[in-house]
Parts: sequence; C-alpha cells; structure tokens
Amino acid sequence: MIWNEKAECMSREDMAELQLKKLQDVVKRAYENIPYYHKKYKELNIHPNDIQSLEDIEKLPFTTKDDLREGYPFGMFAVPSREIIEVHSSSGTTGKPVVSGYTRKDIDCWSELVARGLTMMGIDENDIIQNTHGYGLFTGGFGVHYGSHKIGSIVIPISTGQSRRQIEIMKDFGTTVVIFTPSYGMYLAELAKEEGFDSKDINLKAIGFGAEMWTEEMRQEIQTRFGAPAYNIYGLTELMGPGIAVECSAQDGLHISEDYVYPEIIDPKTGKTLEENKNGELVLTNLEREGMPLIRFRTKDITSINRQSCQCGRNTARMERITGRTDDMIKVKGVAVFPSQIEKALLKVNNIEPHYQIIVTRPHLMDEIEVKVEASEDLFSDEVKEMINIKKKIEDYIENEIGLRVKVTLVEPKSIPRSEGKAIRVIDKRNLH
Amino acid sequence: MIWNEKAECMSREDMAELQLKKLQDVVKRAYENIPYYHKKYKELNIHPNDIQSLEDIEKLPFTTKDDLREGYPFGMFAVPSREIIEVHSSSGTTGKPVVSGYTRKDIDCWSELVARGLTMMGIDENDIIQNTHGYGLFTGGFGVHYGSHKIGSIVIPISTGQSRRQIEIMKDFGTTVVIFTPSYGMYLAELAKEEGFDSKDINLKAIGFGAEMWTEEMRQEIQTRFGAPAYNIYGLTELMGPGIAVECSAQDGLHISEDYVYPEIIDPKTGKTLEENKNGELVLTNLEREGMPLIRFRTKDITSINRQSCQCGRNTARMERITGRTDDMIKVKGVAVFPSQIEKALLKVNNIEPHYQIIVTRPHLMDEIEVKVEASEDLFSDEVKEMINIKKKIEDYIENEIGLRVKVTLVEPKSIPRSEGKAIRVIDKRNLH
Repeated sequence: MIWNEKAECMSREDMAELQLKKLQDVVKRAYENIPYYHKKYKELNIHPNDIQSLEDIEKLPFTTKDDLREGYPFGMFAVPSREIIEVHSSSGTTGKPVVSGYTRKDIDCWSELVARGLTMMGIDENDIIQNTHGYGLFTGGFGVHYGSHKIGSIVIPISTGQSRRQIEIMKDFGTTVVIFTPSYGMYLAELAKEEGFDSKDINLKAIGFGAEMWTEEMRQEIQTRFGAPAYNIYGLTELMGPGIAVECSAQDGLHISEDYVYPEIIDPKTGKTLEENKNGELVLTNLEREGMPLIRFRTKDITSINRQSCQCGRNTARMERITGRTDDMIKVKGVAVFPSQIEKALLKVNNIEPHYQIIVTRPHLMDEIEVKVEASEDLFSDEVKEMINIKKKIEDYIENEIGLRVKVTLVEPKSIPRSEGKAIRVIDKRNLH
Repeated sequence: MIWNEKAECMSREDMAELQLKKLQDVVKRAYENIPYYHKKYKELNIHPNDIQSLEDIEKLPFTTKDDLREGYPFGMFAVPSREIIEVHSSSGTTGKPVVSGYTRKDIDCWSELVARGLTMMGIDENDIIQNTHGYGLFTGGFGVHYGSHKIGSIVIPISTGQSRRQIEIMKDFGTTVVIFTPSYGMYLAELAKEEGFDSKDINLKAIGFGAEMWTEEMRQEIQTRFGAPAYNIYGLTELMGPGIAVECSAQDGLHISEDYVYPEIIDPKTGKTLEENKNGELVLTNLEREGMPLIRFRTKDITSINRQSCQCGRNTARMERITGRTDDMIKVKGVAVFPSQIEKALLKVNNIEPHYQIIVTRPHLMDEIEVKVEASEDLFSDEVKEMINIKKKIEDYIENEIGLRVKVTLVEPKSIPRSEGKAIRVIDKRNLH
C-alpha cells in the first residue's frame, strides 16, 4: 500500500515543478520573516526573485548547525511564537542546543511524513507499534507517535529503558512492530535470549531503525535475531524529526518525501553540488514548513541520491543509508575511517558479538586504533589459541576494509556497556595528550 | 476565560439529565462489549435497562484495580483493537500492570479535558508550558501535551530529569507555565537557588501540580519560591489520565469534567454512597469513553465533593484536594495516619526544609514512626540546643496533627534523596520483622 499515492508516485517532471513553486515560496518566507536569512541574503545580494529554476538553489548560502546555535533559542522562527505549538531541541552536548519549532500545520506535516514511512514498512491500522525511542526534547519518540496516530495503528509509547519490561510487553501486548536503534535492538535480543525465549516467538512484522548509523551486516544480524525485516528511518530534529526518508519493502534506499524536503548532495570540502549517485554530504531544504523553515541545511551525513523509479512504484528520490558523518569520520595516519567500516568487518567474523568500541590513541605521536570486541560465550570458554586466531582474523578484515592495521582486543562477553539509546562507538583519547 | 462554557457552566439539572443519558449508554456499551461487565451484571441479575435514574448507579458493582489486572492486557477494551490508537499502562510495581486503551475520540476527549483545565489555570495560546512530567507508558506527560496542543500554547516536552537544564530552559525559553510534582518542584527551586538566581526571576504565570499528594502548606511554599500560583491537576491512567479534575483561579477545589466522568464518594468500608461534602473514597465512571469505559471504578483516593457554583462561574462539581489514599494510610498503634498530615505539621516549622521521609518500624512489638527532616543550612551551623528545640517543636506539631508522638530526626541538608518524579515519603519496615 502507498499512503499518499499522489505525492509519492508523482512523475519527476510534476515533482520538479511543485518543488520549484514551494522553493520560491519558502525562500520568500525566510527572507521576509527570519532576520538571519534576510541579513545573509542582503549581504550576498540575493533576492527571492533570483530563484527561477531548481538549480538556482545553488546561489543560496548553506545554513549550518552553528547558525542555528547563534539564533538560540527562537531566532530562526518564521512566525510569531503564538503560532508555535511545540518545540524540540537537540541535546546541546557539543555547544548551545539547537531549537526546532513547529506550528500546528508542521506537526501535521510531520505526522504525514511518518505515516508514509510506516506504510512503506507495511504497517497499517491493525498493527501494534512498540516505540522504544525516547520522548522528550529530542524528536525521537514523537515522530513515530504522531505517524502512528495518523495511520491509526496502536502506539505503545514505552520509550527507552525498562528493558526486561520491553520484552514482556512485546509478548503480552502482541507487538507487531518495534522501533529501536540498532544497538538497543541488539541489547534487547540478548536480554530476550537470557529470559529464555526466542525473539522469533514474538510475531514481528517489521522493525524500524532510527537515530543511529548501521551497516547492512547489522541489518542482517537483527533481522535474523528477530525474524522480521528491518527498515531504516532517517530524519533530524533541525529539519523536522525522524521520517524525512524511510525505506520501503525493497530495502534499496530511503524514499525522501520530496514534496516536503528538497535534497542535494554536495562535496563537503568545496560545497559544490554533486551529480546523482555520487557520495557526499546531504543538504536539505524545508519546502513546506511554517515554524522554522531551513534552507540548504548541511546535515553532515554522508550519502548519495538516486532518482530512478523504485520497484515499489514510488517515484520519489531515494538516498542511500548514511555511511558516516563528516564529523564522526576519524582521521588516522591520514586515512579517513568511518565506524561503519569497522562494523562491517566485525560482522563477517563468527564467534564474536556485535558489540564493539573503537578507541583512538596517540601513544608515541602516532595514531593507533584499538577495537574492543566481545568474544562470544562459547569462544570465551575455548582454547586461548582459538582466540588469537579470531583476533587476527578481525584485524585482517578491518585492514581489508579501511587499509590500516588496528589492534583488536577481545573482551569478556557482556563487558561492553549496552546502550539504551545511541551507542557510544568511538572513544578518541588523542585530545587528552 | 472558560474553554467550554456550554459544558462547564451548564445548570445542575441539565448536567444531571445529560449524565443520565450518557450513563445509560455507557452501561449498555459495557454490558454488550466487555465480557467482564457482561458476566458480572448477569451474575448479579442487572440489566442496562435498570438504570432509570442517576441514583440507580448504586445498583451496579464497583470495578477495582484487581479486576483490571485480571483483564490484562486488553480484556477491558470495549472495541476491537483496530479502533484503539494508543495504550498506556500503570507501572506494575504492585502486581500485574493495568492497561488503558484509547480510541481516536478518546484521545480527543482527553485533550478537551486538559484544555479546560489549562484554561482554568489562566493559560492560553500565548503561553509556553514546560512539561516536566515523564512521557512513556504512564499517562503523566501526554495529558498536558495533548491539552496544550488543543489550546495552542507551546509545549516543551522536556519530561523529567536533566534538572539543571530544566532551569536553564525556563530562563532561556521564557517558560510561563511549569508542570511538576510538588516534590520535584521543591527540588528545582533548590537547584535554581544553587545556580544563583531567584526562581521568581522566571516570569511564571502558573504552576500545575500533578501525580502526587500535597498539602495547602506545600502549595504556599512552592508559590512563594516560584512567585506564581500553583494549581492541582487530578487524574488517573485507568480512567483516562491527568486532567479529569483541575483547580480554577479560586483555588477552592478541583472542577470535575462531569460530562465525561461521573463522580461519587463512598464509605470505603461499607461501600455506601456518601452525601455532599462528606469525606470518603472517590469512585468514578467514564461517561463518554469508547476504548475502555470503566464503571464505578474505586480510585482509593480520599476526598469530598461539593456541588455549589464556584465564584469562577463554572457549575461543575468540585472535589477537595486528595488528602490521602485508602492504601497509603499508615495504621500505627491503631491510629490512621496520612503522610499529608505529617507534611502539614512540618511546613509550620521554620529552619527546616520541606524534604522528609516517614519511617515506620516495630522495634519491640510496638509501632514507631520516625520522621526524617532536613535541617536548613543556617540551622545546621547553629547551636545544638537550637536543633533540639526545633526537633521538639516538630514532634509537638505532628502530635497535634495525628494524635501520636513520633520520633523526629533532623538530618543534614540535602541528605534526603530528591525525587525526579513521585517522592518516596513512607518507608515501612514493619514487614521486615
């Protein structure tokens, strides 16, 4: 089923025409109502009338997270605050928090985005969605909550934590869909096993992954453990929240709701727009948003875009799964390393658990990467020789993936802290020296 | 302003007529669609047609929390689960959890209840509500969230925790309304003081108290510390959630939305209905709910009801603040003691902080109550003699309130654990012997 056939199956030409109209409108609204854009466009001698084609968007400057921080708290709002009905905020761990504001129509648009996405995952009003994303200032929990309301499925707003109870509720309530971060999903699978029942006994129809990077290998692992297909949900608080792009049953890229957000891929160094299928930084523009429309927001997420029709019948552009972020790339001995590459290598090895941490140090003025990986219970009781073999195998696979030799440490099962949200994968100790 | 003048200012006669019609309808729906009610009414030889007047409700048996537990998880639903769009649940710490189910109309009714309540507190679309109640399976956070959406104010869904950030956000976002449990409010006031600014500097218009028992003295204390009026919000997950009854600006009892819930007061021992203004256990009946209508649910909360018109212009019945729960009454040496009585006594004494715990022991086959109270910073650096005086003073006040001599221990400032939700006030160690 397709939630909004008109929007999702529109021809590329009609979509481009619609996008141009909306882009002209949003640039005008931003210019007239948001002092930040007004000032910046004036300085650069840009006027809304300069947008005569979609390509003209390249004339506009980027908006960055730092720009949003400068507007803290409500400086980026395009409407008087009495028209705002909800605000969210990023955590602010790396500086002043970023605030995101929503009018009533924005919340409805957000619900629509997620409704489309849940429908792509095969979910309808007969489903029971256990939403383990946290509710709060962060947008995690609310996107799925609003989308579930829109399509009429049952939402269990359990949020993160109480992990044993999560499993009990999956069984007792007959949960058919569970939404989690991949790392929390792995933790729940592990707990379920401890509690003595096979996670496949829960009759899951779909799993939604959000808020974390992951590899195809992690998807396979989770799908096997839960016996259900897992779909990627992408989004970010600044632009709206989770649901901006979601995978369909083809599991071949995430459909972007292009009538709501306009995607571009740029070279993160030069800022130049890249062509289809080229890997680069995702840049998004809100086409419909009233409360806080962002224009050319640099997401820092690395992906590519494909505008081919999908086998599911939708014509919206698809983005690849995020393979890294421009700011969680680790530069080691001059080589760019993404945690996702390490994960990919790890998941090829038997007898280890997919729990890992990457520790970067600079002991003798030279960068070193250590990867802590958990041995499986079986392995840990086996011969030491076997452990050395596995360790070497992992080092080989990783070297193969990233082109660098790293040190691998096998640690005791269950000794790597389990996340109840986003996993902490990288510990960079170099700044401490 | 009154949110729904028709419903809230209706004459007592019209209300009674409306309630009878709705009561007849809900009893019929429960009888026909909920196996629990069908079976019970059959056994007692009751038929929906027996309800010919509001008084006839007394013919119907009570519903208890245990009945709901037996129906776990979805046994009390009156509609097919595809019509349910959201479920909540009590924590289940004292047995099987209780599940509460909502149709789309139920969520809308809940929003309406809270919209009325927020309006009673003087809140409108210009306000910014910082909602510190937790979102999750418990209904705490969602009631205010939905109500705020209804009236169009801004909701900051920050939920509980991150207490320093709460204060920062109050300042930065210009919060005008904060919703908290009284004990969490006290904690925030304390933190704000530590952070070096007077909590009165936050330009608060109203405070909403929920989910916890408190005394008039606690209200005064919080009002002084935050420089804003504090209003009581009552509700429970089984019946819907917070918002069933809310205080208006008169601060003279909580207006019950009587077109949605029918209130009775009973003698908790005999089950007999008590007359107006008599103290007893509150019993509530859902008049409008589709998903899980409860009939004569025993709330265990002790209060009284007053049907006089209020000076605010509303004609709905008002309940007194909850003074205790039938199950948190402590029986000591045959005397019934409620924590609220102890709190009332404590708040009369200067130089102590309103943080306390009540510890019940049975050292020599005789019950003893110890009350741990924090001394203020000033007091703690003063003479020991002064401390002894205060201790005696508190013991006197409590004896005066409950008729029993208890042992009071003054402890170091900030040594009683602060709650980030409901405070743990009573520690009963008698079962350990």
